[in-house]
Amino acid sequence: MEREGKLAFAVIAVNDAASKYLFDNRYGTGQSVMDGLMRTTNSLVAGKNVVVAGYGWCGRGVAMRASGMGAKVIVVEVDPHRAFEAVMDGHSVMSMAEAAPVGDIFLTLTGNRQVIRKEHFAVMKDGAILGNAGHFDVEISRPDLESLAAEVREVRPNIRTYVTPDGRRIHLLAEGRLVNLAAADGHPIEIMDLSFSIQLLSAIYVAQNRLDAGLHAVPPEIDRAVVTRKLQTMGVKLEELTPEQKDYMNSWQE
Amino acid sequence: MEREGKLAFAVIAVNDAASKYLFDNRYGTGQSVMDGLMRTTNSLVAGKNVVVAGYGWCGRGVAMRASGMGAKVIVVEVDPHRAFEAVMDGHSVMSMAEAAPVGDIFLTLTGNRQVIRKEHFAVMKDGAILGNAGHFDVEISRPDLESLAAEVREVRPNIRTYVTPDGRRIHLLAEGRLVNLAAADGHPIEIMDLSFSIQLLSAIYVAQNRLDAGLHAVPPEIDRAVVTRKLQTMGVKLEELTPEQKDYMNSWQE
Amino acid sequence: MEREGKLAFAVIAVNDAASKYLFDNRYGTGQSVMDGLMRTTNSLVAGKNVVVAGYGWCGRGVAMRASGMGAKVIVVEVDPHRAFEAVMDGHSVMSMAEAAPVGDIFLTLTGNRQVIRKEHFAVMKDGAILGNAGHFDVEISRPDLESLAAEVREVRPNIRTYVTPDGRRIHLLAEGRLVNLAAADGHPIEIMDLSFSIQLLSAIYVAQNRLDAGLHAVPPEIDRAVVTRKLQTMGVKLEELTPEQKDYMNSWQE
Amino acid sequence: MEREGKLAFAVIAVNDAASKYLFDNRYGTGQSVMDGLMRTTNSLVAGKNVVVAGYGWCGRGVAMRASGMGAKVIVVEVDPHRAFEAVMDGHSVMSMAEAAPVGDIFLTLTGNRQVIRKEHFAVMKDGAILGNAGHFDVEISRPDLESLAAEVREVRPNIRTYVTPDGRRIHLLAEGRLVNLAAADGHPIEIMDLSFSIQLLSAIYVAQNRLDAGLHAVPPEIDRAVVTRKLQTMGVKLEELTPEQKDYMNSWQE
Repeated sequence: MEREGKLAFAVIAVNDAASKYLFDNRYGTGQSVMDGLMRTTNSLVAGKNVVVAGYGWCGRGVAMRASGMGAKVIVVEVDPHRAFEAVMDGHSVMSMAEAAPVGDIFLTLTGNRQVIRKEHFAVMKDGAILGNAGHFDVEISRPDLESLAAEVREVRPNIRTYVTPDGRRIHLLAEGRLVNLAAADGHPIEIMDLSFSIQLLSAIYVAQNRLDAGLHAVPPEIDRAVVTRKLQTMGVKLEELTPEQKDYMNSWQE
Repeated sequence: MEREGKLAFAVIAVNDAASKYLFDNRYGTGQSVMDGLMRTTNSLVAGKNVVVAGYGWCGRGVAMRASGMGAKVIVVEVDPHRAFEAVMDGHSVMSMAEAAPVGDIFLTLTGNRQVIRKEHFAVMKDGAILGNAGHFDVEISRPDLESLAAEVREVRPNIRTYVTPDGRRIHLLAEGRLVNLAAADGHPIEIMDLSFSIQLLSAIYVAQNRLDAGLHAVPPEIDRAVVTRKLQTMGVKLEELTPEQKDYMNSWQE
Repeated sequence: MEREGKLAFAVIAVNDAASKYLFDNRYGTGQSVMDGLMRTTNSLVAGKNVVVAGYGWCGRGVAMRASGMGAKVIVVEVDPHRAFEAVMDGHSVMSMAEAAPVGDIFLTLTGNRQVIRKEHFAVMKDGAILGNAGHFDVEISRPDLESLAAEVREVRPNIRTYVTPDGRRIHLLAEGRLVNLAAADGHPIEIMDLSFSIQLLSAIYVAQNRLDAGLHAVPPEIDRAVVTRKLQTMGVKLEELTPEQKDYMNSWQE
Repeated sequence: MEREGKLAFAVIAVNDAASKYLFDNRYGTGQSVMDGLMRTTNSLVAGKNVVVAGYGWCGRGVAMRASGMGAKVIVVEVDPHRAFEAVMDGHSVMSMAEAAPVGDIFLTLTGNRQVIRKEHFAVMKDGAILGNAGHFDVEISRPDLESLAAEVREVRPNIRTYVTPDGRRIHLLAEGRLVNLAAADGHPIEIMDLSFSIQLLSAIYVAQNRLDAGLHAVPPEIDRAVVTRKLQTMGVKLEELTPEQKDYMNSWQE
């Protein structure tokens, strides 16, 4: 919208604040998605092939925690840098076509649509579990699931099971909506406090400064203040640079 | 009871089967306790000091998964071998007196009573969370909590908060009963199938063999059959020893 | 030898002391094998398929640390309980026939012979690295390697490269001898102190007690004393049972 | 130099290429520093307090691998976002003044000078080990070590021991030079190939294009090409966006 000049008022990109995306997206999503998955299915995570589509901040968080619960993580990515990061973090990396027949649990966190679709459902194992934690319920194609199903059952709250003509059961969590919101309680408050603070301080900033219509970044001093305050409340001490160290960092002459 | 000759009929010690305690106690408890903790409190695990009392199979499982969710784990143990294992696994080891003032979340898995009591509550931080996953609701002293509390509140289902006279809030999960049973769905079926199979096959074994009154071990062939079948259903292939390898293992002469 | 009555003097099974096998075999081997592998080859561990043959205490330690360095671990086991433990610990489990064509690095810790042999070399990838950390240099069949090689080269100290007729290079570390002894410095002293103490105190025990010829266990009080002293030197505090707790543990009546 | 207009020719900031810093700095340093530490000292990492000064890409890599070898990691940082990341990754965060008396092993990766100095040496434990993996040998103050030492010994190749007047021994690795270069073999080639490719292709780019004097970024197409080729050589398949997905990503209207 910014690119096309369609923003009619000032907007602050709170999701791009480091105090938000580094923590909310990664560690918040990491825990809340695992929570939603486990409480909804009570399925064992250890030893399972957990397919994580998208290795952005959200996907990294989920992959890290799924691995921490004993899963073997398979990452599906379109970006080569992210894909190689996933490899170096100890995960397998595959295309969705390769991952579909070996995955036990599929979690989408891409921000895109139709990430898992007809051709993938066609080769999934009996008992595959599908959950979305991207932003909309379009990452896993529900229309495709519905059109292929010989039978649809609600087997447990928030689990709809699509039975294929050849008898395989594919379980969709929370209708493909955000599994951590629709089937759990969202992120823990110890993470959301950062995001809410960024939002509040940004709103105050907008109110106090006459910003032009269009996209604005969160002011760095706000971004820094929020996480600094967070650390203070936790009793975590930062190291302080000495004057000599500050000089050294700003100079290229030795 | 066996030691005192009090067993009036044949009993099979199913909990001592390797197919049970290695998996149910460790990986089952590891997941279900974390599930119960997270779904009940929605408290962030990452960055917290999680105190695990008892480093038997259950405690090991919980410590492993708490660490996998980003916690710093503090183990409290009475046994020196287990304590040093915990150290080598990357955890801190302390007495409960040392752990009480630094812990954020306390989980008991000892099989003993009064593991956390008056003297520990006296020094805990405001907001400490207490959960039990040992076997009875005596590991965390509820009487001590009740006697010290200036106020008791039910702040959320399965969370009772004891407010101390100096204003600290101590949250007890599920009244100190097993948090994974009382506040979650118990272990995943992919782990319980092993335990149930051991129980069923042991019951059949008792029925088919006239066993003397007293304690009996699970027959090794049953113990082995259960986990072997499990691996088959998962498509996991064991390596087979060649005849030469079998000879080599049974010989001390080269 | 004990079984066949061939022991002509008293022998104490020091390797069966908990203070030895729980630590030396697991954490000692875990570090020293990774050290030997990395310093000899300077090969990246992250992202590699590391095949660990044998999931006893040594194999568990190596699998744990290889995983900690970013590898995807494939365990090869003959015992079903150990195999399922490996699955639950997040590793893949395969037969050696399945693992041979996908492994990048192979480490043997079985105590057996011919664990990797002709049929496996035949399907390995170009560049496969083989190291042994079992007890003798018979786990990886050097004769088979020699008979299949079109060319043998010493490419770096402690790395002998066998080039197959179809041009694949298979690298054997330290001639198949213990890679952590032959190509590194053995276990760190902070682990060996336990093993040496067990040996010393057992030798004194033999000298002070007239033991019969045959196999004897390390006396439990020695086993316990060694690790207790270790914890003391590290400043690690054990929890102490209260008299009420001791009674509770010894009673079956509540 | 760019800021002050002192660059007399075209310079390409190869260290800022994602294909370089995401991998070389993190996973390369992660392995090579642990390798250098272990082969030089043969000191056990498991159970140790490893202090990592600096949680940039290099520090993150070292913290990740130290933790993977069983250490408890303490991060020292000046930046609040990085500090909180370290907390969420399961590490402790402290000032150097707090970390100095509890650390067993200290690794500096800050790019600054005098990160560990007189006041810290004064309170370190007997046996503390110091290694630098930042860029110059000024991160750990060798002059301060020399001025406080009652005795200096070379106890093993690449280990110089400073004995304080009160008898504490402080071990400095590789004279404070880069421990992974001076006391190991540098990064594995499987990581350096990325960095070398970026350098080569950037040099060719400079040669083929008449760039102005001053600082230039690595062209994104080079950055992307290098890691894409890397994945191809490893047989890793990326997911491809469908035309519908590309449209969706570029649109804000649904």
